[in-house]
Parts: sequence; C-alpha cells; structure tokens
Amino acid sequence: MSTALFPQHVIARKRDGATLSTEEIQSFVRGATDGSWADYQLSALLMAIFLRGMSAVETAALTAAMMNSGGVVADLSNLKLPKADKHSTGGVGDKISLHLAPMVAACGVAVPMISGRGLGHTGGTLDKLESIPGFNVNLSLGEYRAQLGKLGLALIGQTAELAPADKKLYSLRDVTATVESIPLICASILSKKLAEGIDVLVLDVKFGRGAFMADKAKARELAEALVAVATAMGKPTRAILTAMEQPLGRGVGNALEVLESIECLKGRGPADTMEVTYALGEQMLVLAGVVQSTEAARAKLEATISQGSALEKFREMIRAQGGDARVVDDPARLPQAKWKVPLAARHRGYVQSVDAMGVALAALRLGAGRAKAADPVDHAVGFSELAKVGERVEVGGRLAVVHANDEVALVEATRMLDNAIVVGEARGETPRLVDEVIG
Amino acid sequence: MSTALFPQHVIARKRDGATLSTEEIQSFVRGATDGSWADYQLSALLMAIFLRGMSAVETAALTAAMMNSGGVVADLSNLKLPKADKHSTGGVGDKISLHLAPMVAACGVAVPMISGRGLGHTGGTLDKLESIPGFNVNLSLGEYRAQLGKLGLALIGQTAELAPADKKLYSLRDVTATVESIPLICASILSKKLAEGIDVLVLDVKFGRGAFMADKAKARELAEALVAVATAMGKPTRAILTAMEQPLGRGVGNALEVLESIECLKGRGPADTMEVTYALGEQMLVLAGVVQSTEAARAKLEATISQGSALEKFREMIRAQGGDARVVDDPARLPQAKWKVPLAARHRGYVQSVDAMGVALAALRLGAGRAKAADPVDHAVGFSELAKVGERVEVGGRLAVVHANDEVALVEATRMLDNAIVVGEARGETPRLVDEVIG
Repeated sequence: MSTALFPQHVIARKRDGATLSTEEIQSFVRGATDGSWADYQLSALLMAIFLRGMSAVETAALTAAMMNSGGVVADLSNLKLPKADKHSTGGVGDKISLHLAPMVAACGVAVPMISGRGLGHTGGTLDKLESIPGFNVNLSLGEYRAQLGKLGLALIGQTAELAPADKKLYSLRDVTATVESIPLICASILSKKLAEGIDVLVLDVKFGRGAFMADKAKARELAEALVAVATAMGKPTRAILTAMEQPLGRGVGNALEVLESIECLKGRGPADTMEVTYALGEQMLVLAGVVQSTEAARAKLEATISQGSALEKFREMIRAQGGDARVVDDPARLPQAKWKVPLAARHRGYVQSVDAMGVALAALRLGAGRAKAADPVDHAVGFSELAKVGERVEVGGRLAVVHANDEVALVEATRMLDNAIVVGEARGETPRLVDEVIG
Repeated sequence: MSTALFPQHVIARKRDGATLSTEEIQSFVRGATDGSWADYQLSALLMAIFLRGMSAVETAALTAAMMNSGGVVADLSNLKLPKADKHSTGGVGDKISLHLAPMVAACGVAVPMISGRGLGHTGGTLDKLESIPGFNVNLSLGEYRAQLGKLGLALIGQTAELAPADKKLYSLRDVTATVESIPLICASILSKKLAEGIDVLVLDVKFGRGAFMADKAKARELAEALVAVATAMGKPTRAILTAMEQPLGRGVGNALEVLESIECLKGRGPADTMEVTYALGEQMLVLAGVVQSTEAARAKLEATISQGSALEKFREMIRAQGGDARVVDDPARLPQAKWKVPLAARHRGYVQSVDAMGVALAALRLGAGRAKAADPVDHAVGFSELAKVGERVEVGGRLAVVHANDEVALVEATRMLDNAIVVGEARGETPRLVDEVIG
C-alpha cells in the first residue's frame, strides 16, 4: 500500500476537511472488513466524518465500497420481474414490511427484502417474523435467489456474504457516539439495500419523538441524501417522510404486530397503518414501472386485499421459509403471553397524545425488544388495541391491552404505558401522517 | 459508574462542542489507564477534542488527571533546594538538557529531569545519555529522589509509576492523526513534567522547518497555552520561542551531541547552542528565585563554566548513574563510528541554509534515530563540524563530517546531507534564534 493510504494519512485529510478520494474511501472500508485498519483508526475516521461531513460523491463512494465489501452483491438478473424494496428508518409499531411485501409481490413486482433485528426502542422485522413458529430468516444467498424465482418474495436476515463492512462499522459507531451522521447513515442503509439485487427502492423516513431522527428538518435532509446517493448509483429511489409521534397502528410487540399485519391483509387493518402502507406501495409500483400513476397503483394494491392474493402470497412465503402458515387463520398459534390485562382510562375525554417513545420503552420493559444486541426477545409480549390520538374515551374505557409474561414487568410497563397516554378535554387535531414525498 | 460517564455520552458531548466537566475528563483518563474505555472510544474522543478544542479549564483538568493517573507524583518536599526543570518541544541537534542541567544544578537549583526517547526526526535526551558507556537512565522513583538529595541533579527516563496515561494516549494519537492538538500536547507535556516534583518550569518551544510545529504563530499559541495551564496549576512557568530552521550547534547524533555538550561545559560550545542554553538557564534561575535578574543569572551560569563547577556536576551525575565519567576528559571512550568522512563544498560562497529536517532525515538514514518506537539506535553515527548559516566556504572546504557504520548508509546520508546544505553568492542574513519570551 502506498504511504498515502496509511490510515493516519487518510484520517488526517478528513480531519482537515479534505474531500477523500475513492481510493482512500476504499482503503477505509477494506480496512474495516479485513482488519488492516485498527478499530481505533476506524473510530477516529468515523468521528472526523461525523464532524467534517462528506460530499454526495464521497457518500456514494462509501456506499459503493461498503456494498461491495463482501466481494459480491446478490445477482437477481435471472429473475424477469422488476425488483423493488422498501426500507424504514424505524419506528414504534412499524410492521408494514410484513404485509406490504406480499401485497407488492402479488402485483407482479418481486420484493427481495433483507432486514435487520430490533435494537433500542425500535423493533426489527426479523424478530417479528420469528414469532411465527418455525419461520426461518437465515436463508443462504442461493436459497434466497431460488425462493425469489418461485414466489417473487423473500424476507430474510443479513447474510455473511453481503456488505459485511456495515456490521463492523455499525457496532463501532454505536459505542463511539458516531451514529447520527447523515453520510454514515446513508452508506449503512444503502450499502445493504443495494447489495440485495433490487432495481428500485422506496424509503420510509420517520420523524418525531418515536423516530431515529426526531427533528423533521434533519429527517428531510437524510431523505434527500438517501434519494440523491441511491439515484446517483443507478437505482431510482423515492422517500416518504412520515410522522412517528404516536405508534403506528394498534399493536406493538412481535407476535402482536404479525397479528395486525394479518388483519391488514384481511382488509381489517387500522387506518393509519394502511395509509402508510398504501403510500409506500404506490411508490414501489410506480417506480417499478408496472403502473403509470399512484391512483392505478392504489387500485392494484387494494385488489390484492379484496381478492385475497396478498394473503395467499403471505401464506406461501411462510411455508417456503419453514413456518406454520396456519397462524394466518388461527392466530392462537402465535406465541401467547401469560397475562393479558386491559389498561382502563381514568378520565373521560379525547386521547391527546400517545408518546411513541414512552410506549416503546414500556414494551422494552416487557421484554419485547433488546437494550443490547445479545439480549433475547420475548415474542409474545407487548400491547394490543392501543388507543389512537383523537379517539373518545370514557372513564374505565379501554386504552390498550398489556400482554406480559412477568408480574413485575406487567405492573411497571402498565404504569409506563399509562404515563405515555394523555387524555384531555379538547378534541385536538390528528397530525398528518404522510408528510411529503421526496424524489 | 453513572450512565452520564458512559464513554459514548462523554464522546457525544465533546463531539457536539460542549465543555467537559472535570468528572468526565477524569473518567476518560481513568479509562485510558485501566482499560475501562476501549481504544476505539479513546481515539474517537481524541479526534473530537482535536476538532472541537478544549478550554483552558478543560486542558488544566486533563493535565491534572493525566498527572495523577499513576496515583502518585514525585514528592521532593524533603529536598530543600528550589527545583526547576526545562522542556523542549524537540529539535534537531538539541542537546541542551545535557549541559544546561548540570549548569543550573551548579547554581544551587535542583534539576529533577525526566526525559523521553527520540522518535521520528527529533532525538531524545535518554538516547544521547545512553551513548555514555554504563549510563543508567532507569532509576526507580526512590533512587531518583535519593540522587536528587545528594547531587541536586538526575536525568532519567519515564517511570511506570508517573503519569502512565500519557504513554497510552500518545501511542494512540500517533496512529490516529490526533498529535497536533494544542490541548492534547499541553496535557501530554505538562502531566509528565508536573509529576516530577518541580517548583518552576521553563519551556523551549521551537518553530521552523525542523520543529514539531513549523509555523511560528502556532508555536506561540502552544507556548501561551502551556504557560497559562502550568501557571494555573500553581507552577510558575515561562516559555521561550526559538527558531529551528538549521540544526542547533555543530553535532547531530547521540554520542556526537554528548561530545558537543562536554565542549559547552568546557567553554568551547558553539555560539548558537550557548545562546539558547543561557536564555533557558537565565529563566530557570530567575523563576527559581535564586537571582533577581537575567543579567545576574547569566553571570552565575557563566561562572559554572569558567570555574568548572558545571563540568564537575556532570561528572558526578555520570558516576551516580553508573556511567564512565572518563568520557569527559577522553572523548574517544564514547562510541566511535567505523567511517568518518568529510563532506566537501562543491561551490564557494556563503552557507545560505542548512535544512534541519533534511539533516535529521539524513541522520535517521545513518541509524541515529528511530522511525518506530521499537527500532534500535546507533549511538556512534551522525554528523559533526556542521557548517552554520552565514559562514564562508571555499571549494573543497569542509561542510561537515559524516560518521557512519554502514557503507550504503554512508553514501546515501552524505548525498542527503549535501542536498540539505545550500551554498550561494550572497552573504544572507542569520535569522534570530531566541525570538520571544512568553510568561
């Protein structure tokens, strides 16, 4: 290696505000993958990037280097269908992937979706899927391609082959206060998504108290960067900005969210969950080129519900991945908590707010998520029948049902949930959920 | 530990430009010492400090925490003499400590000096001392105190007990491009010096092509910060800014610099070496309170040369630390290189410049210094009789003598030295050496 690529020289250049060359960025990513950069050098550069920023060109180079860090990206060229994926920056009660993927697949657009696990206050698609008995998210790259060829749909976890640099860099960012950096977030999200073999991408970038980026202006900045970089890399991409002040839908917790997704596929989904589902699905179909307008896309997506084709696609995916598809018709086959205790309203009035972050922390207390990556998850616990902002309640009326497997956690989480829900006199205003489409 | 002191929280605060509390800074330094912070967390905070800076209060807190990181500082309160030390930011041919320390000690001011080894282009006092056969720089804290009590003079290496955090942090800074940060440099220098047990301190902050900080404004900024922090910590301190464009004196290389120091003690030192020696010594005596003016200090220091008391103090120190004091009268007892080859001038005229950095790299090629901390040092090699800027030379006249132990190195280093010395028509101007006194 030339001395110009010595880690300390690359670090010094970014430290001094220079624009890194593609070769320098590749050296960094290779260093993260093969260990030729020490962890303390990776973290020093991560901090310099955090504070000095990166241009769109640098961010694209970083994304490309991370995408190729496994030496391979999924080759889905044998698959004749257009291929679209969706990614969410993470919210509370966000189970949309579970039912949106089969809806879009039922419209003739393949959905090759590689997802993550929950960490901190947001849940993960893989944890939700694993609450279906037998469901296997650990497909090899070959099995993934084969299933996509057959069903046009696969929901799996990160493989060791694809974009391994992100795993290393993400774990370092988490413990060195370098998470909230737009170029680093962009490269982390897009390197994994673009390695899947997709043609187009739709992003759900959330803002509000329950979102990764609480501030709307910051979330918009992230959305714009994501769209710019992915588009520059040849993948047509759009982002929608959605509010994450109250949890999405009425269920929070792994099996309880699977249950809500099944309800959505049966045409009985909560209005807010379906609003975001359609907004994302419309963009996926339009970008994939199977329809010309969002109106036509909406009609096509609605038909997958009314005709049952999306539900059937969901069953097929569960079977293909070794799961018990009978959960679709018999939800009692999903993990059940020991206690299911309603939370009653102490005041009459209107629900003023449901603090998504407060609900998430209460669910975490029940064991629905993880504080650390190695923690186990309890699939059965969480909340169902959550009240929505603007709804009328009477004293003793139901605000939610708490599902718990531990008495102490039941009591504490119930009190936390109670504090997260404010009931008051005024009717208030329901905030706009889908705020803006970018790209 | 409270979550507020989690490494990532402290890192995030500095990343966002906050002023760290003393408790946070102590947590960082403790983390560096006992391993409770991971290396990648230390380096992330070092980069955040590099880019966000530190206030004088933070720098003093960092210095104090590093000074106390061994749980102990040298207690010299049993020693009735005033105690002064001198530190140089490092230059080429800077052997001043070797003869200044015995001169000051001969004036009745104890000099408890803990020094470092050479790294990169600058030499280290310990390497120079070790070219005296038998000289032991590894005294225990007890032996160091005992010798100071007897002689008022000890020149030793870092002990494991004193300020251990600096060793850890310095090695990380070197490989993460976080060396040139004023608060980090301040804390590194002062934590070690203030742990020695001194009353007052004089600093030689160098600028120019052969200095650690080439830019004079930057060097002045460092000098001001050093003086402010040390003074705030209760140790009267002054700094002098000195030029480091050409090497100091006529000898570069370990034994060759010891030889020049002996010449200085015998009243035959080069003018530039003596100019800086007196400037530093004057400030040490004034700050230590044994004289009222720099003029009186100068007279006192000159007397230690003319009366031979400094040379005798030097002999006593060599004996006390196990060395062969006969080198003072018989320099042939110092390590001798296999070849001693003069470099002849190819043009007549005046010496326009002698590039200190070029000379240092040529000496490094001979083996006089280290590129990496683990490299061995050849004590015999280097340059003597170096020409000084402004001197007249004839064709064939001597520009230097190259001392080498390896033929290939001899040829290469001679060519490098030749390129470092420029001879031209004009007489030119000798730059001012001692530029400014700060504090």
